[in-house]
Amino acid sequence: MVYMDNAATTQVDKKAAEAMLPYLTEAYGNPSSMHSAGEKARIAVNAARKIIAERINAFPDEIIFTSGGTESDNIAILGTAYASTENRQEKSQEGAKERKNHIITTKIEHPAVRETCRYLSRRGFKITYLDVDAHGFIDIEQLKRSITEETILVSIIHGNNEIGTVQDIEKIGKICRDRKVRFHTDAVQSFCKVPIDVKEMNISLMSICAHKIHGPKGIGALYIKKGTPLERINFGGHQERNIRAGTHNVPAAVGFGKAVELFTDADLEMMAQYRDMLIEELAKIPNTRLNGFWQKGDYEKRLCNNVNISFELIEGESMLMQLDNEGIEVSTGSACSSASLEPSHVLLAIGLAHEIAHGSIRFTLGRFTTKEDIKKTVEKVNIVVDKLRKISALSK
Amino acid sequence: MVYMDNAATTQVDKKAAEAMLPYLTEAYGNPSSMHSAGEKARIAVNAARKIIAERINAFPDEIIFTSGGTESDNIAILGTAYASTENRQEKSQEGAKERKNHIITTKIEHPAVRETCRYLSRRGFKITYLDVDAHGFIDIEQLKRSITEETILVSIIHGNNEIGTVQDIEKIGKICRDRKVRFHTDAVQSFCKVPIDVKEMNISLMSICAHKIHGPKGIGALYIKKGTPLERINFGGHQERNIRAGTHNVPAAVGFGKAVELFTDADLEMMAQYRDMLIEELAKIPNTRLNGFWQKGDYEKRLCNNVNISFELIEGESMLMQLDNEGIEVSTGSACSSASLEPSHVLLAIGLAHEIAHGSIRFTLGRFTTKEDIKKTVEKVNIVVDKLRKISALSK
Repeated sequence: MVYMDNAATTQVDKKAAEAMLPYLTEAYGNPSSMHSAGEKARIAVNAARKIIAERINAFPDEIIFTSGGTESDNIAILGTAYASTENRQEKSQEGAKERKNHIITTKIEHPAVRETCRYLSRRGFKITYLDVDAHGFIDIEQLKRSITEETILVSIIHGNNEIGTVQDIEKIGKICRDRKVRFHTDAVQSFCKVPIDVKEMNISLMSICAHKIHGPKGIGALYIKKGTPLERINFGGHQERNIRAGTHNVPAAVGFGKAVELFTDADLEMMAQYRDMLIEELAKIPNTRLNGFWQKGDYEKRLCNNVNISFELIEGESMLMQLDNEGIEVSTGSACSSASLEPSHVLLAIGLAHEIAHGSIRFTLGRFTTKEDIKKTVEKVNIVVDKLRKISALSK
Repeated sequence: MVYMDNAATTQVDKKAAEAMLPYLTEAYGNPSSMHSAGEKARIAVNAARKIIAERINAFPDEIIFTSGGTESDNIAILGTAYASTENRQEKSQEGAKERKNHIITTKIEHPAVRETCRYLSRRGFKITYLDVDAHGFIDIEQLKRSITEETILVSIIHGNNEIGTVQDIEKIGKICRDRKVRFHTDAVQSFCKVPIDVKEMNISLMSICAHKIHGPKGIGALYIKKGTPLERINFGGHQERNIRAGTHNVPAAVGFGKAVELFTDADLEMMAQYRDMLIEELAKIPNTRLNGFWQKGDYEKRLCNNVNISFELIEGESMLMQLDNEGIEVSTGSACSSASLEPSHVLLAIGLAHEIAHGSIRFTLGRFTTKEDIKKTVEKVNIVVDKLRKISALSK
């Protein structure tokens, strides 16, 4: 099988899996325990924390571990919302302070951000969903215009999980800093694939996870800039600076750190090269369109591993199934939305008609994708497109 | 080292770790993906779900996977609270329905339940904390008296994590059923150690996790009886019947299932035997007291792996450190509370004076505890108690 769905999840690097193993069966202590086994586990978790922090120029104590990207997004958004309202309400008993309740996000967020914002809108928060252009970029001027005195948070996805478009978060961060608004970015897809410096980029909160970069499932992290007010959203033990209760997932944290170490610039250059190869070959198929921004060789404006193509007259789900039969594993969009029959909100946001959006396929590469994989994918896509278009023509 | 802190966490059974490994590096798909790799992962997760369901006589679709016991407790309690209030408020626009907002719990809950209830009390919920007797058992009559028309949930820990007392949840379940109140139990410590039949016992919601039974950290489950109203508390993808968003932790789910399979009645009988041996030997040390109920050979009223002893004139933390130096790893209480300097709320609830509570040590056994471990523990505890009591006597 050729696995071309690395945006959904990735193969754990064997070296990361090997690094995890001793923390399952030998150094299995609970970092909250005071004895030697606890200490050993604590050291391992903090070593992983340091590796992750260094990759984004954060301090280790600005990183908290979570169970994954979704939890990180939830903590960032709900935690900021509650810090700005409920607590403020309690603290300012004289009612001197107004409740601030405006959040700005985009029309192309991952469900973990999108649904969290929707929940808040049902609880009285005002949400602005920024438009994107045909390439999936937000309009910086619209962002500026949208910020008001009531705005508490701007949450904008860094590298889009469906079309790979990478927002200019440095520019966004600067605007948020100037306007004194917190800035959260969902960097689950871009982490390790696009250089990120949280200080330079003025990021207040950033969600990342391990299983998109050949680390294990079940672990993510949230960068929380020092001094950022955040209410906890789960309750229990004192773990993770009293923000995230629950026994540390030690082996997964170790695997996360190792996966970050193993992900190098050489990897992303290679991936970008294969990505470009795939785009150029698939572009030769008539009546296709590449979704998202693309510039050959660039990996700062489009994720190095993302190819998203609309095939006219083809139903995406049929294509996925046919490709799977041919040994090529792809996706029609976010795995998290796969139970839904709605066309992708991201593809609609960049202006695609419903029927074109429905005929879109996402190919996503990983560190272990080979040139052979690309060639086989191109060959099989050609076969399947021919076949399905013939059926489609016949059915007319 | 002799690891006597299995209530904090356990060594992953090598067979469980081996079962997990292929799902890290080979069958690494995302269960939400529609291709073959996704299907394979989905099958693995559902096989684990079935094993867990069977152990407690639940249907597989009554089990949702979470990141651990803390998250399960949070979903059960917050989810029930929100289902009873916020939604009700929205739905009954004519205000015909009163908002029900009363929860009954105990004074000996794990922080994941205790702190969640505290949070709700700050949000206008009324919480009743049931007393316990000197052995840690609740008073069934007090429970009956406490249930009112406003009560939405009774949340009572099954096997206590500090003193091992196992509540009669069948009796509690029957009362809750008769009074038409939902019943949640935190069975994180008792799962696999005490027979549980969720149907017979009339349980509506039950929290369990893997890492207390020689499975991996980072995964838990919540049993949700069919028809139990529950609001989701995190937001994102459609996973786990729209209740818990986030990519499935496939390897951990597989390890969880395997750990359940590997945990047999023979294990708990052996553990109970070693527990009794440890209790009898430590009772020979003068001026000690066993905390919690105990009856030799029984493992339905006291967890088969729990020994909790107060040593007069000794400071628990010093004893922990000294024992650690001697190669015995124990705890002064819940690892989740270890950052706190407060004496254990559980020990205070059973009537211990502060200074006695402070001199208490928890020894918890696992499937891999040997007779040798017990002997070595007894030997070292005697040495350390002698030593510390001499210092204590000198300092007077």
